[in-house]
Amino acid sequence: MAKTNTGRFFEDYSVGDVLIHAVPRTVGQGERALYHALYPARLALYSSDMFARKCGLAASPLDDMIAFHAVFGKTVPDVSLNAVANLGYGEGRWLAPVWPGDTLVAQSEVIGVRQNSNGKTGVVWVRTTGRNQHGLSVLEYVRWVMVRKGDPDAPAPDSVVPALAPVVAPENLVVPEGLTFASYDTALAGETHRWGDYDIGELIDHVDGVTVEEAEHMMATRLWQNTAKVHFDTSARPDGTRLIYGGHVISMARALSFNGLANAQMVVGLNAGAHANPCLAGDTIRAWSEVLDKAETPAPGVGAIRLRLVATKGGAPFDLRGEDGKYLPNVLLDLDYWALMPM
Amino acid sequence: MAKTNTGRFFEDYSVGDVLIHAVPRTVGQGERALYHALYPARLALYSSDMFARKCGLAASPLDDMIAFHAVFGKTVPDVSLNAVANLGYGEGRWLAPVWPGDTLVAQSEVIGVRQNSNGKTGVVWVRTTGRNQHGLSVLEYVRWVMVRKGDPDAPAPDSVVPALAPVVAPENLVVPEGLTFASYDTALAGETHRWGDYDIGELIDHVDGVTVEEAEHMMATRLWQNTAKVHFDTSARPDGTRLIYGGHVISMARALSFNGLANAQMVVGLNAGAHANPCLAGDTIRAWSEVLDKAETPAPGVGAIRLRLVATKGGAPFDLRGEDGKYLPNVLLDLDYWALMPM
Amino acid sequence: MAKTNTGRFFEDYSVGDVLIHAVPRTVGQGERALYHALYPARLALYSSDMFARKCGLAASPLDDMIAFHAVFGKTVPDVSLNAVANLGYGEGRWLAPVWPGDTLVAQSEVIGVRQNSNGKTGVVWVRTTGRNQHGLSVLEYVRWVMVRKGDPDAPAPDSVVPALAPVVAPENLVVPEGLTFASYDTALAGETHRWGDYDIGELIDHVDGVTVEEAEHMMATRLWQNTAKVHFDTSARPDGTRLIYGGHVISMARALSFNGLANAQMVVGLNAGAHANPCLAGDTIRAWSEVLDKAETPAPGVGAIRLRLVATKGGAPFDLRGEDGKYLPNVLLDLDYWALMPM
Repeated sequence: MAKTNTGRFFEDYSVGDVLIHAVPRTVGQGERALYHALYPARLALYSSDMFARKCGLAASPLDDMIAFHAVFGKTVPDVSLNAVANLGYGEGRWLAPVWPGDTLVAQSEVIGVRQNSNGKTGVVWVRTTGRNQHGLSVLEYVRWVMVRKGDPDAPAPDSVVPALAPVVAPENLVVPEGLTFASYDTALAGETHRWGDYDIGELIDHVDGVTVEEAEHMMATRLWQNTAKVHFDTSARPDGTRLIYGGHVISMARALSFNGLANAQMVVGLNAGAHANPCLAGDTIRAWSEVLDKAETPAPGVGAIRLRLVATKGGAPFDLRGEDGKYLPNVLLDLDYWALMPM
Repeated sequence: MAKTNTGRFFEDYSVGDVLIHAVPRTVGQGERALYHALYPARLALYSSDMFARKCGLAASPLDDMIAFHAVFGKTVPDVSLNAVANLGYGEGRWLAPVWPGDTLVAQSEVIGVRQNSNGKTGVVWVRTTGRNQHGLSVLEYVRWVMVRKGDPDAPAPDSVVPALAPVVAPENLVVPEGLTFASYDTALAGETHRWGDYDIGELIDHVDGVTVEEAEHMMATRLWQNTAKVHFDTSARPDGTRLIYGGHVISMARALSFNGLANAQMVVGLNAGAHANPCLAGDTIRAWSEVLDKAETPAPGVGAIRLRLVATKGGAPFDLRGEDGKYLPNVLLDLDYWALMPM
Repeated sequence: MAKTNTGRFFEDYSVGDVLIHAVPRTVGQGERALYHALYPARLALYSSDMFARKCGLAASPLDDMIAFHAVFGKTVPDVSLNAVANLGYGEGRWLAPVWPGDTLVAQSEVIGVRQNSNGKTGVVWVRTTGRNQHGLSVLEYVRWVMVRKGDPDAPAPDSVVPALAPVVAPENLVVPEGLTFASYDTALAGETHRWGDYDIGELIDHVDGVTVEEAEHMMATRLWQNTAKVHFDTSARPDGTRLIYGGHVISMARALSFNGLANAQMVVGLNAGAHANPCLAGDTIRAWSEVLDKAETPAPGVGAIRLRLVATKGGAPFDLRGEDGKYLPNVLLDLDYWALMPM
């Protein structure tokens, strides 16, 4: 009996399947420190217990992207080991903070399958939920991936394409219990701009750049127990390069966006996301943002801001697509998310 | 008076000497996080407090190899600063889990010396014991190294070659107090194969590979306060390469072996080990295992499995030695250990 | 309104200005582990709770340089984003240990300004204070930097050059409350040499070297939330190199100095410091020290030793300046500090 995991192929997924992902993971101070070493993360709420307490929280939670990466990593062996491409994200919501010492588990439900016309691959949609040791959901999101068929003669399943909301409606965003920005200190946060200072349509060039290294992206990707071979093994891709985990680009771009969005503290919604082009060691990642929408929330002084976060590896800021409507070759990431900001 | 440590030479060791190794070390959540960033470590018992508690432990202990590396690192300034080669390990036993917050100290007793016929080097055997802050032994093992003579005219000592057991007898393995695999959850652990599913003689190719980088192995090696120059300083070896600490290869191979041995949770015995060839940055480490033996233990649902773990930097899996009986040039590590597995 | 921080220019500083630096930072076990992975740090007091308790402290504090880097990092966006050069340090004192879990905040007062004769740049002196969550000062130091003018036509301010003490007087050094070296264990600390064994004028070659990598210095620099572009972005300097943060060299040299100064446990004073030449990835950092002075302290068994710590990237130990009085091109760092040592 083969003991190793060869991963699931397209024909192994059926709508309604529930995948229990392995390896519950306790995350804490160590993961936080590594997150700060791997990314130029500086948001005050995630850097300081003192600052977080003034915002009504018990302590500084772990960065929202630590929750995302830890949950995502668990899904890789069951969802994307044979994936050709990570096609998109949607309907993502952060439901509760993750505190140091919490243990995260993850499961996914298959909510859609559609074989491609080439007969060799198909698209699989899964809704993934991350829970803590109390059984409380901390994160949920939909991801869809293109997966190879293992047996080219396996019959095509009935197509089921889930209807996903293009945007998480503001009234469905979950503001962490107790959060208040009523006595928010912009001097300690690093910038004076509040929710009211941002206009829909406004563009922000985050200026700073980071040239990425193999050792860093591998450490980051391993930290989340993501095992996809292409990130670690130079023999896994024909050209000998190691493809950088898309989530590394997300965290790098989000951290770079501090410069101009230092008060966009908590990520609470993931509306959409595309990894437009591959990122490799030696690339210099930069980021720009566009304000897509704004909404109020019931929490004291807490506004929601919808942002497009674009990561690039060159080119001019604010350029996104060519005349053909396709992403320009220097665009790495196009992410659409909601964050909470002091009003 | 010279203030710096030039290390001991062969003639400085006598059978019966007790070496008190410097720098007690408190290890915790930070070391755990770094271990997960440096290696693709995914064993559930070392990833999750929740999982560990279901196995009867108070919390998730630190990885067994953290204990090994931390203790080993302390011995380097006293045992192997002038070593020509790390020749072997034996009679190793993990005696108690190491918990976050524990402080480790180490000492070694010289149990053998034998000058080589060239008159320039000799072999030194030491039995090293790691203890925690309560004085409790957590680890013991024998290591033997080839050490240069400082004074070529120093007289050869009487040869004392310790008689070492080729294998730690199963009845001498120490199962951590309270450990039970009676309600072990294979879905959360990542694989369904239990102790009964492995046959003696079975070979497992762990499939995955990691291409290693200078920054990573240096961080790993420093983390254990191992100061051997060859790992850090490009001027220490004639060809300008930095030799990767053999323990880095051990941890990498052990972590890679998750794929096929996800339930070989705790390392409790080290029967033998050889670093067959040097490992350098740029090498892609892979691993395969052979089931050497199996034994029962008194703990509920806990079996012991004896495994050969081979790390390679190329070549076909399961190839170990050439026709001349020597390790093939692509073999990095040949380790023989006992692990605990659910029955 | 521009949302991003372009940094202050020379004309933006006036004597008496108080700069509140952003992002309070909670530091803990994770930062400690990373410090040990990034540097060959082995001082027993910072490695072991057990050892620290025998020295009268509640636990092992975070390394003194963690406090320095964390505070320094906060000042970068307000002090040195447009700096041409980091010219010097002085009047530095560590006032209280930083414990895991402490939150650090920083502020600086402008204490001097002097426009350079070229009319394009000026020198700014700031006195920076780091405080913990109780409002207690843990560190203070003066730094002066050369800063570009943003508007070349801005009028030159009246020159104010602060009179700085060339050395922190021993009676002004603060010994941590409760510290005692009365029952100090040199075997566990790693070396037998005590305060009385060092002579003023004595030179110590620390022997070991570390060849530095891009991934490491960027992780270290990010960990302290230092955002200066030249450390991260290959497009920030004309030659495409990433300049290594001078503090990385300080910590590397201090850690290397263990070999010969294993008992120079706590840094309590920073008399002066110069980053003599740039350090780049691929350089092999070595260090040597000179004993400049010695003093007694009121604490039991605790002496103070004043040391010159020189980091190099080649050349012979103990060579510092050429015939022209300038630092030799291989000298990276010339640091003058006070440490506490068992008598």
